[in-house]
Amino acid sequence: MTLPQLGATTLADLQAPVLARLEDVTAEMRRMIEEDLPLISEANEHLLQMRGKMFRPTLVLLADQATGGPRQNAATLAAVIEVIHLATLVHDDAVDHSTLRRGMPTINALFSHQVSVIMGDFLYSRAVVELVRLGNLDALRILSRVTTAMTVGEMRQLLAHDPLAFTEEQYDLLISAKTASLMSGACEVGALHAELPYRSALASFGEKLGMAFQITDDLLDYTADEAMTGKPSGLDLREHKVTLPLIHALPKLTPGERRALEALMRDPEPGEQAIASVIEAVRTHGGLDYAMGRAQQLIGEAEEELSVLPDSPARETLRASLGYILDRRR
Amino acid sequence: MTLPQLGATTLADLQAPVLARLEDVTAEMRRMIEEDLPLISEANEHLLQMRGKMFRPTLVLLADQATGGPRQNAATLAAVIEVIHLATLVHDDAVDHSTLRRGMPTINALFSHQVSVIMGDFLYSRAVVELVRLGNLDALRILSRVTTAMTVGEMRQLLAHDPLAFTEEQYDLLISAKTASLMSGACEVGALHAELPYRSALASFGEKLGMAFQITDDLLDYTADEAMTGKPSGLDLREHKVTLPLIHALPKLTPGERRALEALMRDPEPGEQAIASVIEAVRTHGGLDYAMGRAQQLIGEAEEELSVLPDSPARETLRASLGYILDRRR
Repeated sequence: MTLPQLGATTLADLQAPVLARLEDVTAEMRRMIEEDLPLISEANEHLLQMRGKMFRPTLVLLADQATGGPRQNAATLAAVIEVIHLATLVHDDAVDHSTLRRGMPTINALFSHQVSVIMGDFLYSRAVVELVRLGNLDALRILSRVTTAMTVGEMRQLLAHDPLAFTEEQYDLLISAKTASLMSGACEVGALHAELPYRSALASFGEKLGMAFQITDDLLDYTADEAMTGKPSGLDLREHKVTLPLIHALPKLTPGERRALEALMRDPEPGEQAIASVIEAVRTHGGLDYAMGRAQQLIGEAEEELSVLPDSPARETLRASLGYILDRRR
Repeated sequence: MTLPQLGATTLADLQAPVLARLEDVTAEMRRMIEEDLPLISEANEHLLQMRGKMFRPTLVLLADQATGGPRQNAATLAAVIEVIHLATLVHDDAVDHSTLRRGMPTINALFSHQVSVIMGDFLYSRAVVELVRLGNLDALRILSRVTTAMTVGEMRQLLAHDPLAFTEEQYDLLISAKTASLMSGACEVGALHAELPYRSALASFGEKLGMAFQITDDLLDYTADEAMTGKPSGLDLREHKVTLPLIHALPKLTPGERRALEALMRDPEPGEQAIASVIEAVRTHGGLDYAMGRAQQLIGEAEEELSVLPDSPARETLRASLGYILDRRR
C-alpha cells in the first residue's frame, strides 16, 4: 500500500467539476420534498438552508462522471441521497435533543420534538417514493440496506451504557453504520449503471472514505476550536461520547488520569478544565496520532480502490476528496 | 345504493378462511424484523406480542383469495403491511408520549423515547428492504405513497391548534391519511396481480372501509366503556381531540353547552363530570347518530365496490368485514 501524496484541497476544488449539476440537485431536492402544508413547507425551507456542504451529492456526481457519466438521473439520485441524509439528521437531533446543527437551530428546537419525528418520516418516505418513480430497484436495494444499517448503528450507540468499555471494534462498527454506509451508498449509486468492478470499487472507496471522514470528524473535537468549526472543542467528551483517540489512549492512562476521566464521565456537566486535561492526557498518550494514522491508512486503502477506474478528471477529483478529508483536521 | 344487511360478525369469523396463512404472516414478520442486537430483539418480542388483531393482514389475504389467490407472496406482503403498521404505531406513541397501547406498555414507556424513534425507523427500513427483495415495485409504489400520506396526515393533526375550528372536511382528510390509506393499501396489495378493475375496486373498498373503521373507532370513545374496549370512554375529549360526533353537534350546542365545552378544552385535565356532560350534549344534538349514519353510508359504498368481483367465499368474508366494523360500536 502506498500512502497518498495529497495536496491541500478545498471543498470548492472538489465541487468545481460538478457545480452546475449541484444546482440541479438542489432543484430536485426542492421538488421531491415539496408539500402544500404550512409546517412541512417551513421545515423544508429551513432544511434546505442548513443542508450544508452537499458532500454526499458531490460524491454521487463524481462517481457518475468517473464511470462514463454524466447520466441523466444522477442528479435525482444525488438529491435522494441528500434527502435521506437530512432525514437521518432530523431524527438524530430528535433522539439527542440537540438544539444546534451547523450553527442553525434544529427542527426539534425550532418547531418541536413531535414535528421532527414526523418530518424525518416524511423525508424518508418521499425519498422512497422518488426511487420508485425512477423504477430503480438497485438504488432501492442499496439505500434501504443503508438506512437499516444506520438505525442498527444508532441502536448500538444507545446500548453503549458504559462508555469506557467501548472498544475499537465497536467504534468501527458504529462509524461504519452511521457515516460510512451512506457515503458508500452515494458512491455506489453514482456508478449504478457502470460495469460491476467499477461499482464495487466505488462502494469500497466510499466505505473507506466514510470511515476516515468520521475519524477525522471525531479528531476535530480534540483539536479544532469553536471559531474554526462552529463546534466547541471537547463537545463529545462533554456529552460523554467516547471516540477513537480516547479508546486508544485509555489503557495507557496513569491511575490519576484515569480517575480524572471517570470523574468527568460521572459529571453531568463537566467543566472546561476537566475536559482540557483529559484532552491533554489523550494527546500525551498518542491517541490523536493513532487516530490520524488510522484515517491515513483508510485514505490509502480508498485511494487504491480508485486504481481500478479508468483515468479521468472525475477520478482525480475523487482522489483529491481524500486530501480534503485529511485537511479538515486543521 | 342499498344499505347492507349485515349480521353480527366477529373477527374470528373473518379470520377463519385465512387462519393457517395468518400464522405464516407472523412467521414472516418475525423473519423480517429479526436482528441480533439486545435492544432491537427485546423491542421486537414486545411488538409481536402486542401486534393485536392482525386486521390489515387479514384484509391482504382475503383480497388475495377474492382475486384468484392464494398466491405465494401474499403472506409476505401481509407481513410487510403489519410491520409498516407497527412502525407507525411506535412513532405515533413517541409523538403523543402515550404510555399504553392495547393494555400493554408502549415502546417509549418500556424503553425510552430515543429507542422508539430509532425502532420505528428500523421497522420501516426493514419493510422497504423486504419489498425490494420481492422485487415488487408496484407494492413499493403503493406503500411509499401510503406512508407519505400518513406522515402528512400526522402533520395536519399537529397543525390543528384550535380544535373547535376543526371542520368535517379536515376530519375526513385526517382519517383518510391516518387510517384509510393503509387499509386501502392492504386491500390493493392483496390484489396486485389481479386484473386492474379488481385491483381498483379493492383499493376503493379498503379506503371506504378504513374511513368507516376510524369513524366507528371515534364513536366508541363516546359510547363504549372501559371494560369493553380497554379504552376509557371520553379519552379523546380528555385529550382535546375533536372527532366527527362533536364536529357535527358543535353548531347546535346551546350557549351554556358551548361554554362548558370551551372550559373543557382549556382545562389540561378535565374531570369526569365535564366530559360526561359534553358527551351527553353531543348525543342530544344528534352527533352520534350522524357519525353512525356516515359510517353506514361508507360501508354501503364499500359493499358496492365488491360487486365488481366474482362471487367467492373470500368476497363474502370481505363483505362480512363491513358488518364487523359496524358491530364494533356495541
